[in-house]
Amino acid sequence: MNLILLAAQDLLDDHCAVVRDPRRLRHLREVHRANVGDELTLGVVGGKLGRGRLTQLDADEARFEVDRLDQSPPPPLPVHLVLALPRPRMLARSLEHVTALGVKQITLLHTRRVEKSYWQSPELRPEKIHQHLVLGLEQARDTVLPEVNLATRFKPFVEDRLPGLLEHRRGLLAHPGMRDACPRGIDEPTLLVIGPEGGFIPYEVERLLEAGCHGIHLGGRILRVETAVTALLSRLF
Amino acid sequence: MNLILLAAQDLLDDHCAVVRDPRRLRHLREVHRANVGDELTLGVVGGKLGRGRLTQLDADEARFEVDRLDQSPPPPLPVHLVLALPRPRMLARSLEHVTALGVKQITLLHTRRVEKSYWQSPELRPEKIHQHLVLGLEQARDTVLPEVNLATRFKPFVEDRLPGLLEHRRGLLAHPGMRDACPRGIDEPTLLVIGPEGGFIPYEVERLLEAGCHGIHLGGRILRVETAVTALLSRLF
Repeated sequence: MNLILLAAQDLLDDHCAVVRDPRRLRHLREVHRANVGDELTLGVVGGKLGRGRLTQLDADEARFEVDRLDQSPPPPLPVHLVLALPRPRMLARSLEHVTALGVKQITLLHTRRVEKSYWQSPELRPEKIHQHLVLGLEQARDTVLPEVNLATRFKPFVEDRLPGLLEHRRGLLAHPGMRDACPRGIDEPTLLVIGPEGGFIPYEVERLLEAGCHGIHLGGRILRVETAVTALLSRLF
Repeated sequence: MNLILLAAQDLLDDHCAVVRDPRRLRHLREVHRANVGDELTLGVVGGKLGRGRLTQLDADEARFEVDRLDQSPPPPLPVHLVLALPRPRMLARSLEHVTALGVKQITLLHTRRVEKSYWQSPELRPEKIHQHLVLGLEQARDTVLPEVNLATRFKPFVEDRLPGLLEHRRGLLAHPGMRDACPRGIDEPTLLVIGPEGGFIPYEVERLLEAGCHGIHLGGRILRVETAVTALLSRLF
């Protein structure tokens, strides 16, 4: 938690913020070992960042005197990430990684090799997803929550939604065995599609290429989804 | 487990391999759902890869008829990674990530902000480290185990060992706030130094720069160690 991320209702007025949830209070005490008088980085969800002085810390709440919230969050990555739904624990970590890296649009996609039971996981409940996004923002000192969409059927996504998404974005399909290596340091709006453990099936690869995605690979090594996602984003942008 | 990694003693002769440990037997049954007759990818620690046909699978062992082990493992990354010792769970995952990515030399370093208790963790026992390296190799279909060294004191490492390591390597110190951005797509022998959660202290940064490391950063976002390691390696190589 490199940032105390405040919801609008945590700001009592322009100069006073209050934190009451047990997770953050515990983190302030146990990790920051914060004392009254300490200065910490604060930010408002969707807004600016700045510094605040801890004026009170007890079992039920922490209060901050807010100095000035005038710094912009770090720039986002120009990418819409389409990720085959990973298994629940991997999903949790991947959401944190990609949020910390600056992804702002995430679509979780069903594909043939995604186990159907994953869609029933409690990790997909909006409040759980929100929790992981917040952890990613707190880590990276960012305030802008990503949007997460669920695409529970492959074909309707590729036929009905993908063409619109690709109108103003370069489409990249990361898949082992594609001809071209992942490009480096591109700076244009991109849609990046990443398959599940075990990969896309050939039918899915064909549909995604037909829809206008360009196939890329990361070399001969097979990586876990969470490693591959970070490696791809870091190399691309 | 995209590869059945065989120790020398698992090869009964040139044509027959046997696997007896419960972890791999369970993986074969539950994840691969392997049946007698299936072809799987095999490789020998430190050696070549090839295919093998499962000829027997019961509670105690799996036997493979080995076709030919004639493929080379994927090329290693030209990097010696010096990583401030992460907390135990992060260490386990980081070892798997970097092994899968192709790192072959790893030094785990003590720094001021590494909690001393981490050095007592069971995760640092040679057999536990070995386990995580094997998981990384199995993931990436590699056979060459990384070497892992422990440097439990910062000053002796920097004064006595670092100069020799930097004789034929470009030294890079990844640290927030350094002037230059992390370079992309370099291809030369490199030593990459990465700090702990919370970073190096200024004294440590000075010593590392003095020793000949060049300071680089990954942008304004603060990343978890495991995310940063993957992001740096993927951008550099």
